[in-house]
Amino acid sequence: MSDRFVSFSLPGQAEVRIGVVVDESVAEVAAPDHSFMPGALAALLALGPRAMREAAARAVATGNRVPLSGVRLLPPIPRPGKIICLGLNYADHAAEGGNAKPSYPSFFMRGATSLIGHDAPLLRPRVSAKLDFEAELAVVIGRRARHLAQADALSAVAGYACFNDATLRDYQRRTAQWTIGKNFDGTGAFGPWLVPAAGVAPGAAGLKIESRLNGRVMQSDNTANMLFPVAETLCLLTEAITLEPGDVIAMGTPAGVGYARTPPVWMQPGDRIEIEIEGIGILANTVQEEA
Amino acid sequence: MSDRFVSFSLPGQAEVRIGVVVDESVAEVAAPDHSFMPGALAALLALGPRAMREAAARAVATGNRVPLSGVRLLPPIPRPGKIICLGLNYADHAAEGGNAKPSYPSFFMRGATSLIGHDAPLLRPRVSAKLDFEAELAVVIGRRARHLAQADALSAVAGYACFNDATLRDYQRRTAQWTIGKNFDGTGAFGPWLVPAAGVAPGAAGLKIESRLNGRVMQSDNTANMLFPVAETLCLLTEAITLEPGDVIAMGTPAGVGYARTPPVWMQPGDRIEIEIEGIGILANTVQEEA
Repeated sequence: MSDRFVSFSLPGQAEVRIGVVVDESVAEVAAPDHSFMPGALAALLALGPRAMREAAARAVATGNRVPLSGVRLLPPIPRPGKIICLGLNYADHAAEGGNAKPSYPSFFMRGATSLIGHDAPLLRPRVSAKLDFEAELAVVIGRRARHLAQADALSAVAGYACFNDATLRDYQRRTAQWTIGKNFDGTGAFGPWLVPAAGVAPGAAGLKIESRLNGRVMQSDNTANMLFPVAETLCLLTEAITLEPGDVIAMGTPAGVGYARTPPVWMQPGDRIEIEIEGIGILANTVQEEA
Repeated sequence: MSDRFVSFSLPGQAEVRIGVVVDESVAEVAAPDHSFMPGALAALLALGPRAMREAAARAVATGNRVPLSGVRLLPPIPRPGKIICLGLNYADHAAEGGNAKPSYPSFFMRGATSLIGHDAPLLRPRVSAKLDFEAELAVVIGRRARHLAQADALSAVAGYACFNDATLRDYQRRTAQWTIGKNFDGTGAFGPWLVPAAGVAPGAAGLKIESRLNGRVMQSDNTANMLFPVAETLCLLTEAITLEPGDVIAMGTPAGVGYARTPPVWMQPGDRIEIEIEGIGILANTVQEEA
């Protein structure tokens, strides 16, 4: 099984730690040479795949072990420099919203304040009940990159995770810009861990991706059906933007979301929403009313 | 004159320093009690207006002085946690693009990789020549804030600066989402400094705002004409989002941008673009071709 890197904290402590999952425990990753900041998984990713493998092996051999059930999992990158999302990146999902097949990705951004980790409450806000799920593949960047070419684009990817790009549909449509509906606190679920790119098919292509609401399959598709695959997306983005270690790209969602159903399905307090990507993991969160 | 806080670096050094402008020099701000990180103006803002005043007074009295002409000015907050921008926030600008007067702001985001400071080259990218200017007021947040009410919303503001929300118009319109056209490296000019909120009218209302291209006035309006003023914008944003110290809100641009002219005016390499806001300062950058 591939290494699975987590960012986590211990009960009652604010400090962000990093580790690798071993069976039902977390082995803490330490940096004996202080070449990366404790807690900054992004800084470890920036050291490259070999350093990641070595850090994982060292953690497994000598790291402190804590039971997985006793830690709070955080988003693998708790504070990404950028979170860039794609809309309408599966043909069936574009069609269910009445959108034509696009010739260029619809990019928008999330702020880090919207992120939550695995098992953290997914918040339904005071001002809207139109809370929808979106199963997505998250790409985590491992090195500074600009003007990537197709042939080497995937070398900029450190790893992959699951993402739930949960959306307040009424706020998404208040104007033509979706951003506000995609940025509510506690709506961007990301995790449960990061799997290094070497442990996944190139571009994470050909993987089953699914969402389940209280155990019922809502979305079920394959990442092979992304209109803009990972490498092409990175080429298009880096025409414009410098990507940096720890930046996250959320690759868009397949058909089956709640708003497009008859009648619409909105997530309710107490609902359990799971996002599963084959070979990566299951990201699960329970919906909770905002305090 | 109000205090003017700058983030800057010295020639050949990467370290981010903070200071206050005194005549033609910068007096460096130090934190004798180490209560904030050197270089992190956001951390100083988070200590509140009184700490800002005291830090400025201490810098003027005892700080190292360096000539303003010998430093590299950086964006006042070089790496904001979030940069949230408003589109169509002046009625005349909405009208010149054929847009109706909106009932809710069009929010979108920039990433920190798009930012440049005063006098840094504003980059025209390889892939587009449709580079346009947008004079804007930047609001810098001073404390964590969620669910602000109109009466106390402005207490979350640490200060104000000028912003040039420079845009690649063809990329802005590749899809309905403007984000990619607003995120090219080296296009988000921010500065030249931060003026504390206490030194500016409440909500920075009633200030003349102007852009000049090679000395020719292109946009000239007044911040009193913003459709969503600062306090209302902060209330709407914090219905959804937690704001944090150092977050930046770019408040939208008045009429007169290049694309809406006949014929259109695009910024060319060598052009000098200035954004001036009354009582805040002049942000100037020269356009340069991407290497």
